[in-house]
Amino acid sequence: MIIKRRSTMLYRDQNIILGCMRIADKPIEEVKDLIQTALDLGINFFDHANIYGQGKSEKVFAKAIDELGIDRSSIIIQSKCGIDAKTGTYNFSKTHIIEETTKILERLNTDYIDILLLHRPDALMDFREVNEAFHYLFDKGMVKAFGLSNQSSTQMEMMQKYIDFPLRFNQVQFSLMHSQLIDAGLQYNMGTFHSQDFLLEYARTNQIQLQAWSPFFSGFFEDIFIDNPKFPEVNEKLDELALKYDVSKEAISVAWILRHPVNFQVVVGTTRSDRLKKIAQAKHIQLSHQDWYDLYKASGKILP
Amino acid sequence: MIIKRRSTMLYRDQNIILGCMRIADKPIEEVKDLIQTALDLGINFFDHANIYGQGKSEKVFAKAIDELGIDRSSIIIQSKCGIDAKTGTYNFSKTHIIEETTKILERLNTDYIDILLLHRPDALMDFREVNEAFHYLFDKGMVKAFGLSNQSSTQMEMMQKYIDFPLRFNQVQFSLMHSQLIDAGLQYNMGTFHSQDFLLEYARTNQIQLQAWSPFFSGFFEDIFIDNPKFPEVNEKLDELALKYDVSKEAISVAWILRHPVNFQVVVGTTRSDRLKKIAQAKHIQLSHQDWYDLYKASGKILP
Amino acid sequence: MIIKRRSTMLYRDQNIILGCMRIADKPIEEVKDLIQTALDLGINFFDHANIYGQGKSEKVFAKAIDELGIDRSSIIIQSKCGIDAKTGTYNFSKTHIIEETTKILERLNTDYIDILLLHRPDALMDFREVNEAFHYLFDKGMVKAFGLSNQSSTQMEMMQKYIDFPLRFNQVQFSLMHSQLIDAGLQYNMGTFHSQDFLLEYARTNQIQLQAWSPFFSGFFEDIFIDNPKFPEVNEKLDELALKYDVSKEAISVAWILRHPVNFQVVVGTTRSDRLKKIAQAKHIQLSHQDWYDLYKASGKILP
Repeated sequence: MIIKRRSTMLYRDQNIILGCMRIADKPIEEVKDLIQTALDLGINFFDHANIYGQGKSEKVFAKAIDELGIDRSSIIIQSKCGIDAKTGTYNFSKTHIIEETTKILERLNTDYIDILLLHRPDALMDFREVNEAFHYLFDKGMVKAFGLSNQSSTQMEMMQKYIDFPLRFNQVQFSLMHSQLIDAGLQYNMGTFHSQDFLLEYARTNQIQLQAWSPFFSGFFEDIFIDNPKFPEVNEKLDELALKYDVSKEAISVAWILRHPVNFQVVVGTTRSDRLKKIAQAKHIQLSHQDWYDLYKASGKILP
Repeated sequence: MIIKRRSTMLYRDQNIILGCMRIADKPIEEVKDLIQTALDLGINFFDHANIYGQGKSEKVFAKAIDELGIDRSSIIIQSKCGIDAKTGTYNFSKTHIIEETTKILERLNTDYIDILLLHRPDALMDFREVNEAFHYLFDKGMVKAFGLSNQSSTQMEMMQKYIDFPLRFNQVQFSLMHSQLIDAGLQYNMGTFHSQDFLLEYARTNQIQLQAWSPFFSGFFEDIFIDNPKFPEVNEKLDELALKYDVSKEAISVAWILRHPVNFQVVVGTTRSDRLKKIAQAKHIQLSHQDWYDLYKASGKILP
Repeated sequence: MIIKRRSTMLYRDQNIILGCMRIADKPIEEVKDLIQTALDLGINFFDHANIYGQGKSEKVFAKAIDELGIDRSSIIIQSKCGIDAKTGTYNFSKTHIIEETTKILERLNTDYIDILLLHRPDALMDFREVNEAFHYLFDKGMVKAFGLSNQSSTQMEMMQKYIDFPLRFNQVQFSLMHSQLIDAGLQYNMGTFHSQDFLLEYARTNQIQLQAWSPFFSGFFEDIFIDNPKFPEVNEKLDELALKYDVSKEAISVAWILRHPVNFQVVVGTTRSDRLKKIAQAKHIQLSHQDWYDLYKASGKILP
């Protein structure tokens, strides 16, 4: 209980996170360039998961950090476990969480990670096992803070009731075109649109730090929408706003997410430093209220 | 906090509200007749919004009230802002709320409105701005009470957490044929029907006063169902019950809403005094339990 | 209030309940054999409803219990009212609840039932009437505990707020193939699957005892899935696991429900003692984490 009340760093100043999912097979020099570029841009929050590149992403990252001579304490490292790729299940057992986190630290070549997220909810989770795993990892200094991913507000409430540590992070898919979490509020009670819960409102009410994964996807692991001829209207508006704000279309797309007062942290998964620079332009602009709504409507949604 | 606990008048005795959306272009004599008829029927609650007739509805209403010599304190006036028709956005900024409410009072030619509803949720709302606007309007005596419209229970909870005033009103679309808010409870867990939340249950649990707009619409801004050949079954049942209760079919349709123990206030938007009289017959009947269910089923829904 | 805090027996050791819906027209000897078999298997929890066989199921059950000479105190009897078959409505009026429960006791030839469930939610329910009915039935010793059926978490919360007795039971349809209550959590925010609420999570958070009806149905009152050629994949996996655990496919299907940590009680409605024996094998096995997920996926759902 004392632990639960302990405040958790939310790193609110870090609104862009470098997602390291796809660096596994990149040449080390490219990865070093990417990381150095991120740091130069003020991005020092890095997102991993034990399954990215089957663990190789974390290894490559560690090598790059080492070769760049970056001080561990100057960066924030987040990783995830809970999806068991070998068995095709979600697994929140004590053994699995501890073993996987131990391997994460080995691969990352670090004594601790700042945040451990449980990747997707194990329907069979035993709260005592999760709790014991977290106590173990926290007491050993292996994990500084815990969070969730791809979970609804009710699932968050359930876990928080039984887990002794604050669960203040939730990483969910969210983009201009995969925006059900916003649509739920704007298109309420119309009889056409249905959503599972109101996570954005819940997060604002309960000080949950949301993170948005796949900010450029048009749907659940579907095509990127930027410069995609399937989506002419949204691209036309993105072009217009890119010109207006003098930034890239990627930056506009991220700025659209950042403009929401829930204060998302956006996980960007590019492996190219030039693209990262273009995306990071989002940090320096704020879309106007009008532009935010125009972009929302251009993405194919209606305002009733 | 002291303010938040202050009790709010809910005007529970006023179960029919005259909606003034469509009076903008009516001759003043017709509007006067309509208002006088409402008052004669015991209806002294009037619903407006800044966007109805682009403001003209409020002006015409004020003129009629003035010419009729009606005492301001004898009627309840509600209006709404938050939909910015000019920009096609929803806007809960402090400036917008204060400016629009100021214009509402000017057009209505009154010192205050009894209730101000925020029309549709601005996804980008800043609670401090809403709160400051409300304090300003309340302290100046311009608004007596505040409420919401077209918002889910989670959205209501979020706003109530941050706003210092009670938010006890929520005006949502609801009719015999746009009845998802009831269907949600009756058709739970069937795998076919899906709803966003359980607003009726939330309202009963938390003493929220719901208001039903478009009580005769068959869907979101779709055809009126009464005497509509597209809906023979419900009209047959309405005919039967109109005969049985010796009232109009409109009255039966409204009585169906009023019969629900959540105690809706029904906003009726007719501009014809003869039709208003027919509708207001609903105040004097109570559908039997059996008739309520039969009508629900005749409207095309099943009971599992 | 004192009453509300009184603890309610949840009979957690009884994870299989014999559902008596279809015994109405069975020969008394068959019913006696069925009940004796249940007791021999450690199943002494029996589920009824006033509408099963139009009351005849309860009568046949009472006759069998009497002829078998079974001590009333050695068994748990649950029944339900609230669906008014005569009028085709749901009815939670005080009169209806008391009258129907009185008739239930007469038919069951017993002084009390252990649990009374309200069968489906009456949209028009008046909490005072329900409360008064419950006080009457409790004070007369006619009902030991109360619960609900086919209700969402929000509906449960609403009723619990106004009813003086703990409402800790909720009987809902749930099976390997009618599994929206699990899908909701596993397929959150994908834009494809939608659910009304998160009842399993709510139940775990609030110590609600869920009961699963129709554990072999493929949908809302749709075909049984076991040995159904329409569902080859799930049957193939059931065959495999039946072999592995050396039990029937029915037992595997029930074990799949029992494996969930919400700790369902499964209502099985077979009228054949041989089939009951096969089903009850579920009590003696526990599916592995892997098998549970494999079966879930074989039933046609995806893990994102």
